[in-house]
This record gives sequence, C-alpha cells and structure tokens, in this order.
Amino acid sequence: MTYHAELAELGERAVKAERVLGRASTAVKNKALLLAAEKLKSGQDAILAANATDLEKAAANGMSVSMQDRLRLTPARIDGIAEGLLQVAALPDPVGDVLDGGTRPNGLRIVKTRVPLGVIGIIYESRPNVTADAAALCMKSGNACILRGGKEAINSNKAVAEVFREALDEAGLPADCVQLITDTSRETAAEFMKLDRYVDVLIPRGGAGLINAVLSQATVPVIQTGTGNCHVYVDRAADQDMAAKIVVNAKTQRPSVCNAMETLLVHADIADVFLPRICGELLSRGVELRVCGRSAEILTASGFPASGFRAASESDWATEFDDLILAVRVVGSLGDAIDHVAAYTTHHSEAIVTNDYNAAAEFQLSVDAACVYVNASTRFTDGFEFGLGAEIGISNQKLHTRGPMGLRELTTVKYLINGDGQIRE
Amino acid sequence: MTYHAELAELGERAVKAERVLGRASTAVKNKALLLAAEKLKSGQDAILAANATDLEKAAANGMSVSMQDRLRLTPARIDGIAEGLLQVAALPDPVGDVLDGGTRPNGLRIVKTRVPLGVIGIIYESRPNVTADAAALCMKSGNACILRGGKEAINSNKAVAEVFREALDEAGLPADCVQLITDTSRETAAEFMKLDRYVDVLIPRGGAGLINAVLSQATVPVIQTGTGNCHVYVDRAADQDMAAKIVVNAKTQRPSVCNAMETLLVHADIADVFLPRICGELLSRGVELRVCGRSAEILTASGFPASGFRAASESDWATEFDDLILAVRVVGSLGDAIDHVAAYTTHHSEAIVTNDYNAAAEFQLSVDAACVYVNASTRFTDGFEFGLGAEIGISNQKLHTRGPMGLRELTTVKYLINGDGQIRE
Repeated sequence: MTYHAELAELGERAVKAERVLGRASTAVKNKALLLAAEKLKSGQDAILAANATDLEKAAANGMSVSMQDRLRLTPARIDGIAEGLLQVAALPDPVGDVLDGGTRPNGLRIVKTRVPLGVIGIIYESRPNVTADAAALCMKSGNACILRGGKEAINSNKAVAEVFREALDEAGLPADCVQLITDTSRETAAEFMKLDRYVDVLIPRGGAGLINAVLSQATVPVIQTGTGNCHVYVDRAADQDMAAKIVVNAKTQRPSVCNAMETLLVHADIADVFLPRICGELLSRGVELRVCGRSAEILTASGFPASGFRAASESDWATEFDDLILAVRVVGSLGDAIDHVAAYTTHHSEAIVTNDYNAAAEFQLSVDAACVYVNASTRFTDGFEFGLGAEIGISNQKLHTRGPMGLRELTTVKYLINGDGQIRE
Repeated sequence: MTYHAELAELGERAVKAERVLGRASTAVKNKALLLAAEKLKSGQDAILAANATDLEKAAANGMSVSMQDRLRLTPARIDGIAEGLLQVAALPDPVGDVLDGGTRPNGLRIVKTRVPLGVIGIIYESRPNVTADAAALCMKSGNACILRGGKEAINSNKAVAEVFREALDEAGLPADCVQLITDTSRETAAEFMKLDRYVDVLIPRGGAGLINAVLSQATVPVIQTGTGNCHVYVDRAADQDMAAKIVVNAKTQRPSVCNAMETLLVHADIADVFLPRICGELLSRGVELRVCGRSAEILTASGFPASGFRAASESDWATEFDDLILAVRVVGSLGDAIDHVAAYTTHHSEAIVTNDYNAAAEFQLSVDAACVYVNASTRFTDGFEFGLGAEIGISNQKLHTRGPMGLRELTTVKYLINGDGQIRE
C-alpha cells in the first residue's frame, strides 16, 4: 500500500525515534516525564489559551454542556495531569525484564525479555487529558506514539503535545517520540489505521462507534478497549444487604464508565423480597428501571409504583447504557444467570453475590470475561485499583492481554539466544 | 454483520463446545488425544483412501510434484502424526496456571489465571497434517477450533477431522470442539475471516499470499505467523570457521522454511577473505548467489567464476526466497548491518557471528525481531528447539506473543477477584 507523504513521514520519524527511545535508560525517560510535568505547570497559560479557543468553537458549534466539560482544562485539571506524569515516572520500568529462559541441551542459552511494542497509534475523542496520559505511558514503556485526537480538541492537543516534545528534547531524547496528527479529517484517520508499515499497534479510546470504525478499517493490529456491558447476579444464597450495597455502587457510583453495571440478574427464590427493596433504592437514586415480565409482576404485586419501571426490550439486555439506566431480569437458576451473561457479555467485568461456595466457583469458572468478581463491585476493574498504576485502557478482547492495561501490557517479548557456533543437525 | 446460516451455526456450535472443553480436566483432554492417536493408526486405511482421492484429483489438475508430496499421506506419515499427538498429550496443560496475584489494601484478593483463548480459526493450505497438529494443540489448550484447509486436501482433512470428532465423543467431550469447514470456496473463507461474533482468534498458516489475504480481510483478530526474511551478519570480529558453518547451516539445512537465512551480510574488513570462501562453499551446495556491487568486485578479483553469481536487485533484499537462493551484501560497519536489517527484516530471526562483546550486545539490543542470535544458526527458532514442545506457528507480529507459539500462547488471562462486600468509594 502507498501512503500519503505526510503520514508516511510521520511513520518514518516515529520508527526512527523509537530506535532511540526503546533503548533509553529508565533515568532518562523519567527525566523527560518530570520535565513534561514541570512544563505543563509553567506553561499552563498557553495551554489554557489554546483550550479556550477549542471551547469557543465548541460552544459556537452547539456542543453539549457535558461534552464541553470533558473538553475543558482548568489550572486544577492541568495540575492533576502533571501529577499523573509523576506517578508514571514512579512506576517500575518493564523494559528489559527477564521473563523466562534457560540453557538447551545443545548449550544454547535462551533469555526471553520484555521489549517495547514499538510505535503505538492512539485514536481518541475530545478529552485533551488523553494526550498527556497516553504520551506518558508510551514514553515510559519505550514506545513512540502517534496521537490522533478529536478535531474539537485540536488546539489543546497541540499545546499539550508540544510540551512533551520540548521535554523529550531537553532530556536528550528525540522529540518525535510523541507526534500528533494535526489533520483531523476522517480520510487521514482512515489511512492512519492502515499504516501497518510503521505502526505496530493501534489503541482506540472512546465510544463504541469509534472502536467499531477502527476494527472494521484497520490493518494495524488493534487492542480493543472499554466496551463494558457488565452484569451483577444476585444469587439465592446472597447476603442481601451486601448485594444491595454492591448493586447500588456498581450502578450509581459513576454510571458513565465501562465497569459500571448495566444489567442486574436476580435469582427467582429471593426476587420477591430483594427486587422491591433494590428497585426502591435505585429509583430513589434516579435510576431508570427496564425490567423483565417476571420482575414487573413482582414489583406490581409488592405495590411498587407503575411509573417506577418499564418493560425491557430485547435490545436493553445488549446495551451499555453508560447512564442511570438499569436492565433487570429474574433468572430461575445459577445456570440461567450464566447463560444470560454468556449471551450478552462484552467480556469485561461480571459479578456474583453469593455465600454459596459452589455457586461462586461455578460462576468464576464459567463466565468468560476479563474480570469475574465474587462479592465485590464491578467498579474495581481499573489499573490503579489493581495496583498496576496508570492504565491506557481496559482490554476486553482476548488477544495480547485482558483487563487493565498498564506499562507491562505496552510491551512485547524478544528472545535473546547466545551460542558458541551451534548449528541445526 | 449477518452471517450465512451455515457458518453462524458452525460458530455457535464451537462456542457451545468450548464452554465444556475450556473447563475439561487435563486427564480428559489427554484421553481424547490418545484416542485420536489410536484411531489415526487403526483407521489409516480410510484416511489413505481419502488421501488417494485428493492425490488423483491433484495429479489430474496438474499440481506440481513437490506440492503433491506435501499433500501425500503414507503409513509412516500417519504414524508420525499420531506420535505428535502423544507428544502434545505429554506436555503440561497451561490452563488454570496462576500468573500473578495478591491482596489489595481494601482486602480484595486478585488472582490472574490462564484460560483458553476460546474459539480459534485456522486457515491453511494443502498439508493435511496441519489438520491434526492444529486440532491437537487447540484441544490440549482448551480451545475449540474451526479448521479451513485447502480444497486440494478436503477429503484427507475430512477423514482426519472425523477421527478427532470420534475421539472427543468417546472421551466424553463435544465432537464440535473440532470442526472443519467443508465448503472450500473463497467466499466462505472471506466470511469466516469476519466471524468475530464467534471466533476469538484467527491463525493463518501458509505463504505470504494467504497471510496478506487474511490480514486485509479479517475482522477477527489475527496472529501473523511465518514470514521470515532472516539475516546472518558476519562481523569483522567473527571466528570465520564458525561463521562458515553457521551460514551454510542457516541457508542449506532446510531452505524452504521460515527460519532459513535469506541475506548474508559481511563486514568489509573481512570480506576479501571470507566472501570467496563462503561463496565457494555455498556454490558447491547448489546455492544461487545474488550479490551487491562490492561483493561482485571482491569475488571477481579473487578469481571466482563469473557464472557463479549475479547482481542482486533491490527486491532481492526484501525477498523470502525459501529456496537455495541467497542475497549477499558487504557492509561497512556494524551500524550499517543493523540499518540493513532494520530496513528489510520481517522481525523473525536475525543472527550476528562475532567474538566482540560490544558488537554482540549492540546487535541484540538494536535488532527488532522475535529471536536475535549470537553465534548460532537462525534455524533454531522452533517450538521443539526452544523446549516448548509442538508449536502452532512462529509469530512475527508484536501483539499477543512473538516467536514460537506453543500451548501457553494459545491462552489468554482472566482475573478472579474475591471480596467480602467491597464497593468503590
């Protein structure tokens, strides 16, 4: 495939920069991160001015208030981003780790080591903090990155990327370790997804629309992140007080994120008692309830207001609402719960609440997801909560890795084989 | 996307079968492998008859003799395939391995375990032994497989797949753990590559044409295997006797495979002596030499026959000959050698021959490939040689894994998280 000259140059510069960054010492990479953190703070006026330009255009184009809030940078938010860079600098550097090895019968010494993936492409939407987070994680793990953010944030992204490029240069590393695609057309994005001669991995960060567009167009290998149609199943042997706490937390603590619960499954044996109770708690917290026929009967019989719920449609079981909306279903058995999850899971985070040892084990072994919880909220699927430090996303595909992706997950392996003249007979 | 009913049914059956196989004990999986090995031997007449049908058609269609040889099964070859199944049965089962884990400050206990990838699609060409090898490795690692072999081998593949299905059934596992696509049209293959609702990973096994077709069409994540444009660089500090042995081995021991050498790089300081010698040895072994301008001058000056070599073209540096053909280039320095490799490598296996500590280290750190050798033949990149046992292929992409792919590489991870009511604050 032939590429437009501009993208091909970007790719070539990234590959060249990576040959230096991939072998840079942890000390030098950390120096660049600390310099970037300083420059974010000292240069915050310029960044805020660039962000103000983006916000003006966004308002003029009728962007929603909540989207404008995602786009907005403030001195406090910039401090938060800078703090994030210091945290990344403090994390252990995975590059060069020895994973395995040994000496073969013929005397060949084999060492399996961790090396950077190479050039990572990140395609994301309008939150300018992603520019800094992604650049920092890629830098620390020895990867050059090519960033393609949304056009709404282009001025903010340019300002933030420039800070990293200056910091890299000052630390003695190639500025091209961090590059931003400034042409935000769809055509250029589509070609970027096919830049497999230069880009080793593509990570889309954003909604389902973005991720599907990347999956269908990319020839660069993609790590799929962030689609979470998560379930909590309340078993007949559940501690119902614990179940209520977990359900409320998984749905309402931060409904817009991928590890929030989207469907509640309740065992029929406890539904008469548990459903009216939990639905009352959720309703009082503003949650819209979309329920199965059996749930509706139970709620009606319990005197629950008819205005408090509506019938779920088939598509509700498959929807990641990312909002204060919950699908609710009564299931006849643990097996039915597992079958429902198997039919609708996006393989992200699934939970059972139970005190039955066998039910817990069966659920954890049967359910095919990155994270399978017993008696805890799905909201813990997160790099910080798992102790990995900052994350670049949560993989819900099976290839390469699954679950929160920290620095280690931005590496691949290399076998170093040392001999003294071995040949194959 | 909507699928043709037949492929969708195949996919659904594979997912259903995998839910059983993924949790089957090692003992049961081994029992199925041993039964399949027995049935291959006891049923060899039927397999040979099916193979004879394929061979007759192939001869009638004018298939080359060497391709017919790849397609041919004999009693000895069937014994070899059965022996391979016993070896897979003897390998450790990776499923359920605990990779990492710990207890978080909030008391959550996290265990990172190994689980099967799920449903693996294999697309391959006309060698019927791949049907058995792939089925065995997938079974042992708990993965259901959907096999799509070449149309030339369809009768042989059906006979071999049937043996596995009977063995699975007899061992108490679903026969649908191994399914063969019997419609060998290109349209069905193209749709199979998009069967992402059911298939977790696609592994093409075959030539560059097949692999590129899969990469450009698939929406299922692909593991790219087997493209090997491998280099041996003979440094100025090389032991020239050792270098000659390694070069001859890497080129001639089995030229048709992916880990054979395709380009020889020789440091200018030793080229006057080493080039005429190694080219003479290679020529006497029937190797066609395609050389750079400097090499031609040196060979001519040394009295080497002009008929013994020809000028290399630019495309020769990028070609995986898989044959007794070698590109030869003189380089001015270690850095030039590394730059040449960086320009043309397929990231498979690369070697340096040197007694210089710093040159060895520089080459191993700089060269971006799955396997980087010092003082050994590239031919060792192989699951058996690495001690992994049988392999499904050699990954030369960076995502998921790199190098020989054994049973472990056919797994992904799952986090099991156990709590006592933890919610996120």
